[in-house]
Amino acid sequence: MKRREFLTAAGAVAATAPIAMPAIAQSAPAIKWRCTSSFPKSLDALYGSNEYFAKCVSEATDGKFVIETFSAGEIVPALQALDAVQSGTVEMCQTACYYYVGKDPTFALLTTSPFALNTRMMSAWMRFGGGQELATEFLKKFGVIPITAGNTTAQMGGWFRKEIKEVSDLNGLKFRIAGLAGRVMQKLGVVPQQIGGGDIYAALEKGTIDAAEWVGPYDDEKLGFQKVAPFYYYPGWWEGGAMLHNLINIQKFNELPKQYQAVLRDASAEANDWMIAKYDSLNPGALRRLIANGAQLRPFSQPIMEACYKASNEVYAETSAANPDFKKVWDSITAFRGDQYLWWQVAEYGFDTFMIRQRARGN
Amino acid sequence: MKRREFLTAAGAVAATAPIAMPAIAQSAPAIKWRCTSSFPKSLDALYGSNEYFAKCVSEATDGKFVIETFSAGEIVPALQALDAVQSGTVEMCQTACYYYVGKDPTFALLTTSPFALNTRMMSAWMRFGGGQELATEFLKKFGVIPITAGNTTAQMGGWFRKEIKEVSDLNGLKFRIAGLAGRVMQKLGVVPQQIGGGDIYAALEKGTIDAAEWVGPYDDEKLGFQKVAPFYYYPGWWEGGAMLHNLINIQKFNELPKQYQAVLRDASAEANDWMIAKYDSLNPGALRRLIANGAQLRPFSQPIMEACYKASNEVYAETSAANPDFKKVWDSITAFRGDQYLWWQVAEYGFDTFMIRQRARGN
Repeated sequence: MKRREFLTAAGAVAATAPIAMPAIAQSAPAIKWRCTSSFPKSLDALYGSNEYFAKCVSEATDGKFVIETFSAGEIVPALQALDAVQSGTVEMCQTACYYYVGKDPTFALLTTSPFALNTRMMSAWMRFGGGQELATEFLKKFGVIPITAGNTTAQMGGWFRKEIKEVSDLNGLKFRIAGLAGRVMQKLGVVPQQIGGGDIYAALEKGTIDAAEWVGPYDDEKLGFQKVAPFYYYPGWWEGGAMLHNLINIQKFNELPKQYQAVLRDASAEANDWMIAKYDSLNPGALRRLIANGAQLRPFSQPIMEACYKASNEVYAETSAANPDFKKVWDSITAFRGDQYLWWQVAEYGFDTFMIRQRARGN
Repeated sequence: MKRREFLTAAGAVAATAPIAMPAIAQSAPAIKWRCTSSFPKSLDALYGSNEYFAKCVSEATDGKFVIETFSAGEIVPALQALDAVQSGTVEMCQTACYYYVGKDPTFALLTTSPFALNTRMMSAWMRFGGGQELATEFLKKFGVIPITAGNTTAQMGGWFRKEIKEVSDLNGLKFRIAGLAGRVMQKLGVVPQQIGGGDIYAALEKGTIDAAEWVGPYDDEKLGFQKVAPFYYYPGWWEGGAMLHNLINIQKFNELPKQYQAVLRDASAEANDWMIAKYDSLNPGALRRLIANGAQLRPFSQPIMEACYKASNEVYAETSAANPDFKKVWDSITAFRGDQYLWWQVAEYGFDTFMIRQRARGN
């Protein structure tokens, strides 16, 4: 029975008795959640989208569903966000699944991985290519359900102290890079380094490492890498479009009224668009300033890109052979990817190509 | 006073009187709206997103805010959607602003226009480049407020009975194309034709027209153009990413509880992503089938693209000189566009370029 019917029908009959609150569940109860993020407040596009998401949820529920947001380290460290949700310490987190490759390499594929999908393709795969179903099935093992909540867009290849011209220049290179991309680069002689964001600058300055990747112009600019490692390479072939997620404790999610579940979905979509638009609007100016301040843009050479592509496929094959979950998800991505670029190269790429040329010619 | 407080405090006191519905405004009242679309049901990505949007709104309000959707012609014809909202016949519509260039050419810029922005850039301009503010200010004159609600992504250049190799081949061409792009093409001798979607095939078959543009592979395939005009040109330089809008009667919007206003915003974002992902997932297979069924893909030649670019800039200059609203919006778009492609050509384009090449080489 709907609450309104209760009031007009049963309510009048019971009028002589004291009116207690209806025993039925309220359709829009007051609920307070905590969301821990894997990102610091300084990454204001990443973390800012989480604050915006929480604001949207509150607004769409007339302030009844309140999600308090915490940056990395306030409740748990950045990379323990998933654990905190699984254990119920917090109801949800904002994170990148690929931070948990140590638990299972399949996590990487839910964010982005070497030579996988660009930003829009990742979204299309999630919604209509089977991605959401595969992600939901896989993450069930970790007690969480995923909702897409942002994308960094295509990232840069990072900052290098010296130019990297030949494949052999990668040999022995101490590169701050993690996850699957680190494993790929190991095949080419790179020595992957794990260093927290705050320590990268000093390590580059001292020469403890030779190179480091971070995000893209807007986030990179804040750390000032161009002063100590001026060669700024592109593209970040290991992050063609890194998808962020809201991961929610399954039990907590199931306890929500259906209405609030829908609000989480829609507010996540609003935050997703917000983050992508924010990066798209802020990266150009940051790139311009970086170049003015000494950054030297360099594309990875075709031989280097091809060697990395080959090494990536080896890592994919090895990991697929050892891990059925990984194989299932990666097979889905590659099947989707093939046709995607068949189409992408036509209208989208044709339009962008012409616009880029016109710009270069000053038109 | 909140409804809950009313029940527990005043409710008990008034218990001997018949219990009427509270006279205070309910925070989550039952509301029913009608939304007329400019699209027929057969365009199931475009119209389907509107149905999905309405479903999201209902789910996020526990069925209290119901938006009934109507396809083009059910209440008013496709191109009278804006008028129907302005006059209050319906509370809102799903439409493309560029359908109303007859009222004011500024409308075109709110959807897409020749050599303007791609899909993501349009979203970034709307959110962080001043677009939403300009659109809101302009559309106030027509009694509506805009919420972004989808994008067709980059469109194709259309179907041609004969190959178009030289700029001079455009001279005298009867081309089904509307709006600003039609005016641009007129400068190159094209005779723009206005023909409803259902009549294009017959006109192409009889030779009443020489060419027609529609949307992209997924929507075009349904109309079977490849049988009568096999040359399928790209890119649709006049639609680098056509943004759809929910246009809402300002008074009706202002009467909504803030909560429902937020729900409209978030559900529109969810529908926006849904539509883009749907096109991205369905266009590749459709393109493959079109080619298998006789479509012959052709890029517009560089001289043709450049002539069209030049003619577009003439139309922009002429229209800007005559219309201050148009000038204001177009100046904002071009300022935003310049830096966008500075960045886009680096990581995004670099990633896509490599992936397209690898695919072409069968890797």
